[in-house]
Amino acid sequence: MNLVHEGHIATPKGFYADGLHAGLKRMKKDIGLIYSEVPAQTAAVYTQNSFKGAPITVTQDSLASSAETQVLIVNSGNANTCTGKQGLADAYAMRLATAKKINVPEEYVTVASTGVIGVPLNMPLVLDGIAQLDEQLSNGKGFQEAILTTDKTIKDVCITIQLDGQRVTIAGAAKGSGMINPNMATLLGFITTDAAIEGAYLDKLLRQTIEASFNQITIDGDTSTNDMVLVMANGMAGNKPISAHHPEMTLFKEALLYVCTVLSKKVAEDGEGATKLIEVTVNGALHKEEARLIAKTVVGSNLVKAAFFGEDGNWGRIIDAVGYSGVPVNPDTVDISISDVAVLVQSEPVEVDEAAVLSPVLQQKEVSVVIDLHLGTETGTAWGCDLSYDYVKINAAYRT
Amino acid sequence: MNLVHEGHIATPKGFYADGLHAGLKRMKKDIGLIYSEVPAQTAAVYTQNSFKGAPITVTQDSLASSAETQVLIVNSGNANTCTGKQGLADAYAMRLATAKKINVPEEYVTVASTGVIGVPLNMPLVLDGIAQLDEQLSNGKGFQEAILTTDKTIKDVCITIQLDGQRVTIAGAAKGSGMINPNMATLLGFITTDAAIEGAYLDKLLRQTIEASFNQITIDGDTSTNDMVLVMANGMAGNKPISAHHPEMTLFKEALLYVCTVLSKKVAEDGEGATKLIEVTVNGALHKEEARLIAKTVVGSNLVKAAFFGEDGNWGRIIDAVGYSGVPVNPDTVDISISDVAVLVQSEPVEVDEAAVLSPVLQQKEVSVVIDLHLGTETGTAWGCDLSYDYVKINAAYRT
Repeated sequence: MNLVHEGHIATPKGFYADGLHAGLKRMKKDIGLIYSEVPAQTAAVYTQNSFKGAPITVTQDSLASSAETQVLIVNSGNANTCTGKQGLADAYAMRLATAKKINVPEEYVTVASTGVIGVPLNMPLVLDGIAQLDEQLSNGKGFQEAILTTDKTIKDVCITIQLDGQRVTIAGAAKGSGMINPNMATLLGFITTDAAIEGAYLDKLLRQTIEASFNQITIDGDTSTNDMVLVMANGMAGNKPISAHHPEMTLFKEALLYVCTVLSKKVAEDGEGATKLIEVTVNGALHKEEARLIAKTVVGSNLVKAAFFGEDGNWGRIIDAVGYSGVPVNPDTVDISISDVAVLVQSEPVEVDEAAVLSPVLQQKEVSVVIDLHLGTETGTAWGCDLSYDYVKINAAYRT
Repeated sequence: MNLVHEGHIATPKGFYADGLHAGLKRMKKDIGLIYSEVPAQTAAVYTQNSFKGAPITVTQDSLASSAETQVLIVNSGNANTCTGKQGLADAYAMRLATAKKINVPEEYVTVASTGVIGVPLNMPLVLDGIAQLDEQLSNGKGFQEAILTTDKTIKDVCITIQLDGQRVTIAGAAKGSGMINPNMATLLGFITTDAAIEGAYLDKLLRQTIEASFNQITIDGDTSTNDMVLVMANGMAGNKPISAHHPEMTLFKEALLYVCTVLSKKVAEDGEGATKLIEVTVNGALHKEEARLIAKTVVGSNLVKAAFFGEDGNWGRIIDAVGYSGVPVNPDTVDISISDVAVLVQSEPVEVDEAAVLSPVLQQKEVSVVIDLHLGTETGTAWGCDLSYDYVKINAAYRT
């Protein structure tokens, strides 16, 4: 597995991308597209929120008509959610305008939006933006900028693997920041690959991978109405189509998990107001799902998050969160370490020289928490960030 | 139902209370007791956190031995949780010292603690404090101060009702502030009454009442290890014992709910860093439990809380939280109003002059949100507070 340092969402063979400023945001890029020169097997997972953004309905419609697509159109600055019948009509209009411009069938276009809820899309600006997008560009960085909202950094990754002797590239781009507590689908995440893969298997792989990556991050416990992770695989790498029976399928599976994990960590690291990335791993669980749930509960605790912002190794709040996670644990057999410093062994406190030993690790940009339940052999990891003044500031003033 | 303005936890007939500074906290009162001159029917509910503080084990032990108690001993500044075998021995030592001092059987004493987790209790200070407490005082205000941690205000209430022609008094005191997301039990809440009531019925009433009051508040979604609500009823008012068959039992039930609701709202209002009390009511639900869950999800959303801190009527975040609450709703039939201003009707945005109409109500100290699902006739309410810079500040620096 090789990291392509200059790679981006349009690096896999046959993919193009662009992003530009259409005027939905004041200054920054706010509309983007991904284009595959041949139809790509496409799979997507969506938010489990009961209120789904209009673009999600349209994308589901496209994928129900055709498991292959060629274009994704996305805007930031407006989620087009709770915008009623007009909002749905607007999302379909985005799809139609994009299809006409690029000359592909409507059902070959998927649509995503992110931003404020409940405000009608400014369609003249959106349509004008679509008209200006150039589907022949390899402007992956522009695309990656166009999907951001309060994000401070772009989140991308690009890797190559060898499959059937062919070079296969997988690239991903995501946006995160706030309203991040994905549940099955998540935020916006887009993955392109030139791998050939069977459609049903791509769908299955995406769902499995999401469970261990995007669904294991939480910034604020709020599951958005517009979360979506979409993968397009156009087969241009020339490998034999990947399926459950392909001898090297594990390699692709691991590569996809790596791409999703890198994006997930980047989203967590750039959570609204974040100063630190927090990684929580739970070992010794009876079931993988339980390990994941505990890890996510701990990393989602406001009190744990605020303690890490204060560079305070207050493990009492960690054990408290383990205890209310809903997973049965033995209260007498828990170990906790913070960035490799043991603070609790068999549920009894360890005397630690906080100033000399704990403070230095808490000042780092990344803090890891490892919890061992000593109940079984399963493990799970989750990622989040600290809770800072800036989180409050950003969200007290987001619309104004 | 009459409010007793000068009333406190020791106002009901036969109850005494005291509180003083033992040295567990730097300056403020940190140890207190409630004493009933005759044995009182006692019921309690506890945290559902897997890690329970040692005092909870001791209190459960006392109530398992005897449904009647006479004394509650409580300290703040140290939760005596995750303190191992020594912590349990310390909690039993607190019980024993109190029993000896007041000359009652050990099992007539209940114990509670609140404060930092994982630090051994300073027992010389605790025992010295117990020795100094005066069980003949009517120092209810002193008691109410002694149970606080980061609380800015005491939370108390005292009411009288007429039952069988007798004056019955019910008083309550609570502490809240942080790590508040009670689940079945909650924070610390103590209720005294001179009503006569059957033990089993008191227990049942307490559990019912908690579901609609203390369990419907959330400050930060963190369920503490030490939550406890305890009610002592000593029968000295002289009414016929209340049971399910008592003709005026509804009156007592309503009075108990009133006491618990007042305390719950005071806890929410004084949540760590709070500048506003937020009340969320869900109407038109199919089931009461679902209405309560949605209300609590909305009032617990960091994004909703931060928006109210910013005095921003961002109802998109409210509908988002309704959608991820886990309760099935019809996404097309939801109404939302904020302090009586309709912002969403049948899931479509209402045009509101924000500056003229919404801003003034958002500047109030209390904000109410009413959500109508139009699915059924059940209703539920939850209370919380906004998320401010001060919440982060308090929790980034709590131990240091």
